[in-house]
This record gives sequence, structure tokens and C-alpha cells, in this order.
Amino acid sequence: MYNICMEKNFSEKVINRLTLYHCILKDYISSGKEYISSKQIATLLRIDDSQVRKDINLLNNSGKSRVGYIVKELKTSIEKTLGFAKSKKAYIIGAGNLGMALAKYDNFTSYGLNIISLFDNDTNKIGGEINGKKILDISNLPKSVSGDGTEIAILTVPGMYAQKTADLIIKSNIKYIWNFTPTVLEVPADVQVWNENLMGNFLQFTYHI
Amino acid sequence: MYNICMEKNFSEKVINRLTLYHCILKDYISSGKEYISSKQIATLLRIDDSQVRKDINLLNNSGKSRVGYIVKELKTSIEKTLGFAKSKKAYIIGAGNLGMALAKYDNFTSYGLNIISLFDNDTNKIGGEINGKKILDISNLPKSVSGDGTEIAILTVPGMYAQKTADLIIKSNIKYIWNFTPTVLEVPADVQVWNENLMGNFLQFTYHI
Repeated sequence: MYNICMEKNFSEKVINRLTLYHCILKDYISSGKEYISSKQIATLLRIDDSQVRKDINLLNNSGKSRVGYIVKELKTSIEKTLGFAKSKKAYIIGAGNLGMALAKYDNFTSYGLNIISLFDNDTNKIGGEINGKKILDISNLPKSVSGDGTEIAILTVPGMYAQKTADLIIKSNIKYIWNFTPTVLEVPADVQVWNENLMGNFLQFTYHI
Repeated sequence: MYNICMEKNFSEKVINRLTLYHCILKDYISSGKEYISSKQIATLLRIDDSQVRKDINLLNNSGKSRVGYIVKELKTSIEKTLGFAKSKKAYIIGAGNLGMALAKYDNFTSYGLNIISLFDNDTNKIGGEINGKKILDISNLPKSVSGDGTEIAILTVPGMYAQKTADLIIKSNIKYIWNFTPTVLEVPADVQVWNENLMGNFLQFTYHI
């Protein structure tokens, strides 16, 4: 019974909380703090500190001292556990305001999301650059991607062009679409879509106002 | 036992699914389709159609025919149930690419989110307009908001300014912050924060790639 592969399946909620702990740890490092307690994390997120301890116990974290967790070691544990180290290639499809905002979001890199380039059909934008990433002609998408099945398309075009653009993404052999448009896409069975449902989130938040 | 107030508490997952059904219904209306089946919705979202029927049964929806749900009536039922009709005032704090993208996102209005104006500290931006909404000087925030406790601040400033800006939002008597920055904010007990945790979502999606 030894040597059983300890592959862990974290629930969505656990992953979500761990990334929030990671944000807090980064802030702690910026302000030169060495230790953090489960109580401090719990207070910031308004959750129970037993929940925080339970989540941290899921990590292979050795950095626990009498005065709390060692900030740097806990941060590294989260990164290893969530696989930030495993870099993923992504393309932003649609160089409008949202696409530009995501291209500028340097935090992505520290989470292993490597944005290669942007694509658009606007000749005024094609050839330009944002945060060191080139804006390329959307018609070149099929020949630009490697199509090795691990690449991600971040879809930020206006809703009315969403399906048509998704069809081109699929034709380019990209299997993962992070969909920021308010359109539910029709895709083949081997393509996975994550709908970034901003309105759903907003309604959860404001349902009781 | 009659006349019991039928106040429903929908879970986050139900609210999330209902807004995705709403997206699909809007697309159906655009393409002139009158009816939709639970199976059609379920196929698009890759969930079980019994789940779709269960969710729709939670609504006070009368629009069921032999050939499926009546698209327009189902859409209205979702809107009434999730309280889209109850309009909420919001301010975008930070007129960068993300703030601009959200200001242009006309879908918000149909979900009852009424963006009044944007705020920034950049004199090149102050006085400008985006999608009919004015960009105002951030120092005027406290006197611009009504402070009736129902307003929402959408925080889209760079992470390094997040806490300082949140402090000003709180001083302005705004009780709800929709936080798009990668910073966990420290706020008083009567202020609620919804962390739009993009990286958490991304990692849930790409964990197994």
C-alpha cells in the first residue's frame, strides 16, 4: 500500500481560496512580513480560521513555526500544489479594451499563464504591440499556433462575433477557450470552454442589495 | 399555512447557471427562435437536462408548451427571479483598459447594473467620456456618491493602489466593492467585497492541462 500516487483533486472552492491566500502572501512579502497566522488570513477573507488551516493542511507545506506559517514557504507550497510552475501558452483573441487589459495583467505570468500574442482583424491595431506582445492578423491564427492541444485562447471579442471567432479558434486546433464574451459557444466535444460569467458573479454578490 | 412569503435563497451555482441560460435565451431571441428545450440548453452547457429542468422549476415560469419553453417568457422569468429589474447604481474606479472595457459592456444595463460614471486621478483622462459616461476626478468621489448604502464601486485600479483607493471608497460611504484587483482588501465589517478572482477561475479551468 506504499507508493500510492498522491494525486489530489482539489475542489473549485479550495482552488479559489488558495489563490486568494496567494494574493495575501504576495502582499505580506511586499511589506516585508515573515510570518502569517491562519487567523490573519481568515480575518481578511471573512472565513473561519479552521477552514484556512484545513486548506493549508492539503498542501505539502513544511513552513510552520511557533509564530505562524513562514510566508515565503507557504507561497511556494501553493504555487507547487496548483501547478503554477507548469507554464501554459495562451493567445488573446480580440485586442479591444478587455484584451488589452488582460495583456497588461503581469500577474498572469506568475501563475504560469504565458500570453504569446494578441489577434485582431482591425488593420489599425495589427502590427502594434502591447506590454511586449505583438498584435497579429486574426487570419494568421491557424498557422501561428502550434496546435499541440495544450494552448489556450482567451476570447475577448464583442459578443456578436463570438461564435464565428470560436469557429476559427477550433479550426486552429486550440482545445481550451477562456470565454469572456456574454455568449454561450457551440463547440465540438474535444474542446473545453470556461465561461467567465461576470454577470453571474455580479448577481451572486448583489442579489440581496 | 397560506400566505407564507416564498422568499427563495438561490445557491451561487443556481444563480450562475440561470445567468448562462439567460445568455442562451438572448441568442435564441436574436436568431428569431421561439422555443427551447431543456435538452438544448443542457447540450450547450454540457450539463444534465434534468438539472436544467430542476433549475427552471425554481422560477415562476408559466411559459411551457408542448414543443419546449417559450423563449421570451423564460427569459422574463429569469430576469424577475434574479431581480434584474431592481436597478443598482455603480461607479467604475480606475479608467484604465479594464475600467473602459466594463464601461463599454452594455450587457450590464440589461442586468440592472447602472454605471453612473468613472473616476480616475489621471488629468489626461478626467473630463473625458466613454460610452456616454463621464470620467471624473477621483478626489470628487466622496461628494459625488449619494451614500445611501446601495451603491457599488467597481475597483479596476492597478493592484498597488488598490487598498488606498478602497479606503477612499469606504470614506465615501459605499458599502459594496466589486474588486477586480489582485489584492485582498482590508475593509470595515459593514463593507462587503466580492473578489473577482480571475486567476482562481483560470486555475480551476487549466488545473488538468
